[in-house]
Amino acid sequence: MSSSDIFIGETIGTAILILLGGGVCAAVTLKASKARNAGWLAIAFGWGFAVLTAVYTSAPLSGAHLNPAVTLGIAIKDGEWGDVPTYWAGQLLGAMIGAALVWVAYYGQFHAHLTDREIVGGPGAQDTKSVEAREAAAGPVLGIFSTGPEIRIAAQNLATEIIGTVVLVLAVLTQGLNDSGKGLGTLGALITALVVVGIGLSLGGPTGYAINPARDLGPRIVHALLPLPNKGGSDWGYAWIPVAGPLIGGAVAAGIYNVAFA
Amino acid sequence: MSSSDIFIGETIGTAILILLGGGVCAAVTLKASKARNAGWLAIAFGWGFAVLTAVYTSAPLSGAHLNPAVTLGIAIKDGEWGDVPTYWAGQLLGAMIGAALVWVAYYGQFHAHLTDREIVGGPGAQDTKSVEAREAAAGPVLGIFSTGPEIRIAAQNLATEIIGTVVLVLAVLTQGLNDSGKGLGTLGALITALVVVGIGLSLGGPTGYAINPARDLGPRIVHALLPLPNKGGSDWGYAWIPVAGPLIGGAVAAGIYNVAFA
Amino acid sequence: MSSSDIFIGETIGTAILILLGGGVCAAVTLKASKARNAGWLAIAFGWGFAVLTAVYTSAPLSGAHLNPAVTLGIAIKDGEWGDVPTYWAGQLLGAMIGAALVWVAYYGQFHAHLTDREIVGGPGAQDTKSVEAREAAAGPVLGIFSTGPEIRIAAQNLATEIIGTVVLVLAVLTQGLNDSGKGLGTLGALITALVVVGIGLSLGGPTGYAINPARDLGPRIVHALLPLPNKGGSDWGYAWIPVAGPLIGGAVAAGIYNVAFA
Amino acid sequence: MSSSDIFIGETIGTAILILLGGGVCAAVTLKASKARNAGWLAIAFGWGFAVLTAVYTSAPLSGAHLNPAVTLGIAIKDGEWGDVPTYWAGQLLGAMIGAALVWVAYYGQFHAHLTDREIVGGPGAQDTKSVEAREAAAGPVLGIFSTGPEIRIAAQNLATEIIGTVVLVLAVLTQGLNDSGKGLGTLGALITALVVVGIGLSLGGPTGYAINPARDLGPRIVHALLPLPNKGGSDWGYAWIPVAGPLIGGAVAAGIYNVAFA
Repeated sequence: MSSSDIFIGETIGTAILILLGGGVCAAVTLKASKARNAGWLAIAFGWGFAVLTAVYTSAPLSGAHLNPAVTLGIAIKDGEWGDVPTYWAGQLLGAMIGAALVWVAYYGQFHAHLTDREIVGGPGAQDTKSVEAREAAAGPVLGIFSTGPEIRIAAQNLATEIIGTVVLVLAVLTQGLNDSGKGLGTLGALITALVVVGIGLSLGGPTGYAINPARDLGPRIVHALLPLPNKGGSDWGYAWIPVAGPLIGGAVAAGIYNVAFA
Repeated sequence: MSSSDIFIGETIGTAILILLGGGVCAAVTLKASKARNAGWLAIAFGWGFAVLTAVYTSAPLSGAHLNPAVTLGIAIKDGEWGDVPTYWAGQLLGAMIGAALVWVAYYGQFHAHLTDREIVGGPGAQDTKSVEAREAAAGPVLGIFSTGPEIRIAAQNLATEIIGTVVLVLAVLTQGLNDSGKGLGTLGALITALVVVGIGLSLGGPTGYAINPARDLGPRIVHALLPLPNKGGSDWGYAWIPVAGPLIGGAVAAGIYNVAFA
Repeated sequence: MSSSDIFIGETIGTAILILLGGGVCAAVTLKASKARNAGWLAIAFGWGFAVLTAVYTSAPLSGAHLNPAVTLGIAIKDGEWGDVPTYWAGQLLGAMIGAALVWVAYYGQFHAHLTDREIVGGPGAQDTKSVEAREAAAGPVLGIFSTGPEIRIAAQNLATEIIGTVVLVLAVLTQGLNDSGKGLGTLGALITALVVVGIGLSLGGPTGYAINPARDLGPRIVHALLPLPNKGGSDWGYAWIPVAGPLIGGAVAAGIYNVAFA
Repeated sequence: MSSSDIFIGETIGTAILILLGGGVCAAVTLKASKARNAGWLAIAFGWGFAVLTAVYTSAPLSGAHLNPAVTLGIAIKDGEWGDVPTYWAGQLLGAMIGAALVWVAYYGQFHAHLTDREIVGGPGAQDTKSVEAREAAAGPVLGIFSTGPEIRIAAQNLATEIIGTVVLVLAVLTQGLNDSGKGLGTLGALITALVVVGIGLSLGGPTGYAINPARDLGPRIVHALLPLPNKGGSDWGYAWIPVAGPLIGGAVAAGIYNVAFA
């Protein structure tokens, strides 16, 4: 694969991943969405089919890593590091594009949720909510972009992200040993997607399962940049955990693979 | 494929698509349905498995486009336009047949929902509901046939439909590059179906994800024609968006494909 | 396939189908079940994965029809009728065995639901419920065995069963034209299962989607025979519809196949 | 396969199985989990995708039995018993590791659930709950580790576990007769996973479907060992049923296979 195919494939794929993954969070969270309160199962399947669509579409170009932790695990496993910066750059850019597209697709819903006015641009639209109501709306809106812990214990939060990512990357790395390993495109994409549904259902409870640094960092940057009314802060104090945890998890998975499977 | 196979395949396939897709909306919406209030996840999976059944059944005849936006995207990608009118005609006819079959399958439920009388044909059956209750029942019944926005902002509604359709058509177009691409019939049908579940979960919140002009226009025509009591209007003012948005989205997807993947 | 393989395969397969299909209805319906009130989506997926398990297990022996309407459709399509009685006999016997196994697996739950006493065999256990409470419990228990209409209109109920079965049998018949058609065992079993989930979600609302004469008649006979306390009647007045409707639907699907696909 | 590959593969695979399977129970049960009250469907899919991830990852090393009842069934079918102790030892060790990882991933949630204090380690943290509240919290926490009956009737509980395991092991044994049987890795892993979802939905209501001795016994031992506050007893009186039932079920399935399918 050429560097430009890798970069374009990862950008397109990660953009689709975050568009659909952030999208299901918006769909379940925001006022005036048909899917409001559809529940955790909808979120877990939504993220899983986001992975499916993104992997399936981008695999022919870049092999569909779409996750810096996957790229790191594969680099450690294969001992080849040359393309890592290209993968990572495409992933971060794609995640930012995807988050911005969520904002476009749910433009009116964001406005209605954060201001209690459905019509965008009316006079004084930012003034109708109390401070308490603004804060109550802002937290879930940040959750559409980035993950956050239910209980803020750095050691546990980091451990949960590491554990979830080990499961994901180990499943990806063993793909080459299975009969779906020849082309990740189709059956492998489906398995990976359902593995992600499983991780979400099983390990998403404490931190919201970033298990992907680009998935968390890219949208958090976009949240900080977007002109959302009453949006509140972007919780940068937590931002290192969903970056460090998945990278550590990807490295641990590669270590397990090299010891037990290679 | 011969023109008659294309026309018959698309008619049968799109009829199944709308029968099952409109059916799940009826199942979740109407009074006296066992699936009433089964929720958004049921709707998203119902539409996805409608795609699966329809694609799987009609693929041997016509290749199973079942969507004018897919046909448009493939025509732009391949530069072959000769069969487009045949595809589109079959798709529109099939969508109308499917919508009529939903009405047959849920005949009593439509009546009970719109009139508050379970037994069809009793004297004065149309007279038992207040004007307000009629209007409250009529809106969701139109939603069984066609899509509508939660917040009516034409630019956003159009954008949401374009974005959703780009994701769908890009996934369909890249199918030929994956190992499921040789025959769309089986594994490709499954992937496409789950992609549609994902689009529904993630991007369905604002407009109900038509992402298919025939899926929206055909049933809307049938809604206007059927002798449903107290049915209200068919919201023709909105009808252009779920036609134009998906067509634009299909063209954009073909453009992305030709630039990045070809 | 030998006649004995066909009979044994259909008996085992249909027993698994009804064990898991009736089982999910028991799980969602009965008191003292962990899955109580899990909802329509659970029922639809439960029946679908019942099909998957049953087809997958019995396909190597009998080809896994598991449904007299499927057997009829295949017989009309192929013009071969010799094995039809063997298939039908195995299917009916298997359905009865499966329904009896549901009773075994949920023995205490049936007792607790119908008598308000968890401990089986206590003195006067049948006497603790009012007539009204008995009737309110008996209806859903019959629903674990056999289907029933939400609105009792014979023409519509029959039409709904015909429509659902046409969709099912047409998907089964076109399997041979797809790339999964060579061995129904694996990928074909999965597709058929998800088609059944889709039919349940979309067309199950009015009648509970028998779409299989053995699935309805066998368990209804077992319901009439079992020593369930306070069980009420078996609604034999409705029993012809979920037999006749699916058989008509299977024949119509074969007709469509022979005209459009052959 | 070498003995060490078998042992390592079963240990890793069963650890993943219980990490994700116990994890979804923690996610749905515990306070301060994003997935709290996500319902039975989430549990059934969570366990199923736990099977998928675990089988897919460990199949290249050990063939992915991950269940002493599966190992027993295969040993009876093939008449080869040499590797059985290695399989069983890896499965039990893996199940214990997986249960301990659930505790790590949900550390703060366990504490918050059992003590009503989110912050671990505050003074008197064990003293804030009444005896009744402690008991009400301890039961569901045990349910994250091991299964328990809704109605405690040993004969029925045993029968339900036998029936569920017969379905599972029969599906696994017939895999070799289907076209997915050549390598269990990919499509077979998916089918097995969805069979387990189906068994959970349909037969999980009375006892919580252990259908795997290691899945129940290993985490029960870990529950007895872990320093969970206010955790209550580990219900050892019931522990023999989810061990004996699945082993009997695996043997019955092998018997059915040898008579009907071999």
